[in-house]
Amino acid sequence: VSEFKFIYSELANIKNDDSVALGVGDDAAVINPPEGYQLVQTMDTMVEHIHFDERFDAKALAHKLLHVNLSDIAAMGAIPKWATISLATPHFEQKWLSEFAIAIQKNCQEYGVNLIGGDTTKTTQTGPLTVTLNLTGIVKQAQSTKSTSQSYLTRSNAQIGDDIYVSGTLGDAALALTEAGFENSALCEKLLYPEAQVVLGQQLLSEDIANSCLDISDGLLADLNHICRQSQAGVGQVGVEKVSADITVENVPISTAYKAYFSSQQLDLNWDFALNGGDDYQLCFTANADKRKSVESLAENLGVQISRIGRITPAKKLEASHFQESINLFLHGELYVCQRTGWEHA
Amino acid sequence: VSEFKFIYSELANIKNDDSVALGVGDDAAVINPPEGYQLVQTMDTMVEHIHFDERFDAKALAHKLLHVNLSDIAAMGAIPKWATISLATPHFEQKWLSEFAIAIQKNCQEYGVNLIGGDTTKTTQTGPLTVTLNLTGIVKQAQSTKSTSQSYLTRSNAQIGDDIYVSGTLGDAALALTEAGFENSALCEKLLYPEAQVVLGQQLLSEDIANSCLDISDGLLADLNHICRQSQAGVGQVGVEKVSADITVENVPISTAYKAYFSSQQLDLNWDFALNGGDDYQLCFTANADKRKSVESLAENLGVQISRIGRITPAKKLEASHFQESINLFLHGELYVCQRTGWEHA
Repeated sequence: VSEFKFIYSELANIKNDDSVALGVGDDAAVINPPEGYQLVQTMDTMVEHIHFDERFDAKALAHKLLHVNLSDIAAMGAIPKWATISLATPHFEQKWLSEFAIAIQKNCQEYGVNLIGGDTTKTTQTGPLTVTLNLTGIVKQAQSTKSTSQSYLTRSNAQIGDDIYVSGTLGDAALALTEAGFENSALCEKLLYPEAQVVLGQQLLSEDIANSCLDISDGLLADLNHICRQSQAGVGQVGVEKVSADITVENVPISTAYKAYFSSQQLDLNWDFALNGGDDYQLCFTANADKRKSVESLAENLGVQISRIGRITPAKKLEASHFQESINLFLHGELYVCQRTGWEHA
Repeated sequence: VSEFKFIYSELANIKNDDSVALGVGDDAAVINPPEGYQLVQTMDTMVEHIHFDERFDAKALAHKLLHVNLSDIAAMGAIPKWATISLATPHFEQKWLSEFAIAIQKNCQEYGVNLIGGDTTKTTQTGPLTVTLNLTGIVKQAQSTKSTSQSYLTRSNAQIGDDIYVSGTLGDAALALTEAGFENSALCEKLLYPEAQVVLGQQLLSEDIANSCLDISDGLLADLNHICRQSQAGVGQVGVEKVSADITVENVPISTAYKAYFSSQQLDLNWDFALNGGDDYQLCFTANADKRKSVESLAENLGVQISRIGRITPAKKLEASHFQESINLFLHGELYVCQRTGWEHA
């Protein structure tokens, strides 16, 4: 019964666009997909104590829940359109629910996302509060089957010789989880309010720049490793070459707050948070070397930092990475070995 | 990392149909919606200790999670097509995960549902295990805007004079939650393995039989109350009449196991579990009286029990229902008052 109260009072007045034939309030929502588009669908869950802590109020949680999913849609180069949300909460607290509902609607509207339904249930008395969002986006269908241009970006199309890029800066969110980072507002901002690179993803697709793309949620190395592994398309076919990546560690983008964190503690700069931290929600993509000018223009036009950090290479015996099977790291020309072994929060 | 192991080992070999351009394994899935169809989307969550107990093994949970969502799709008259799943589990137990993955795939295949992605995360050590499924279905777009036939079923189109029907039998699942019902295998079967009325919903739409429809998940009275309330479309407009429902309690369908439960305990038959129990996942629909022959034929063709239990009436002062605002109950011609006040598990 509380579920209905929440749905009707908080979500019944949502302003949706014409694509929504029937929104919140029936057994299911009905939407009109635009003709000539494919649908792109992703779902992510955030669990209290696992993915977020007491620093997250309703507003921050709503923001991050949407952006975690927006980031997956961005990685495909898609336009986000329709969301369903599930809330499993230990108690129906009207104030919190209102704040969450208002924040999620505001965030959705900012990105043209229609909130079309979901579920609100009780969980056990001690929680944990658990929130799930399913996000559906759209991409234009390829004009012709003979066209070489992709209708969406994938992890599996990196080419030998491709440059490797990342957007934004990495590692701040991971530092915000350390004892000293906990109270650092610049670092916390990145943990609580990541901004998914939705427009960047769309442009990387529409300008035909990226050969492969994914979002960095598990850490640069773990995610880049997915690109390497999954770009060996047709493994087992004759003549298919496996691919690796060479990364120039000093080119991995880190923020002023990241550098200040270590100097304030009189510690040497530690690259591992940037390389393995996770929770960054930036894009990592690969592109042919003849796209360097296009990438520069794009960065300038969007006002987004984009850093070239390495190159896709033919697979070779790896020398330095004791856990990443496909990546060689170099710091100032020397082989570099990571201390940490990747992000395992989920 | 465990998430990826699960996704790749258990779900990578899913057999999907041609509508899936890109399935599990990238940042998001890509699907090709068929032209001329609208999309129907629903999402439901099940939480351990709240929605299911120790009687649910991985197989039962997978079955019920899908059917709870199928039931919403059925209530719209839609064809289920694509599912994403989120699992928040206290520990990654390979055996349980395998059983769950195999069962969910088997259930999905049986209903032509493509499993296209999702999320697997840890929850806190003590749980509760929390599972969410987002299901997207399709319905044919109305041929012409002048056509009076609906392209999907809703709660909001019941007409005064409509007969009220329900499928199957009601109340068994609710009885299975009582102390004496806990060990009764016939009752438990209905709690653990409800069968959503997918084909019935589709036929009620395509044969243009039902004016309104929903699935009974919160109990007959609570759900029928939604039909009454939401069928007052245009509240505030001049001439719009509010609607109520008259229910003939002895016509509400109950199973042999339901009757045996009370006689075995030497108790008078109690209708409240059937009226308010919830968790039934049968359809309640209303139809014009001239559709009675069609309903009978449909029941016979599908081998589904369909019972006529009442009628939609003009709104009137209600005499018997102390909690349902729109429903009058009659048992053998006498006004009947419910003991329980509805299902509030979520």
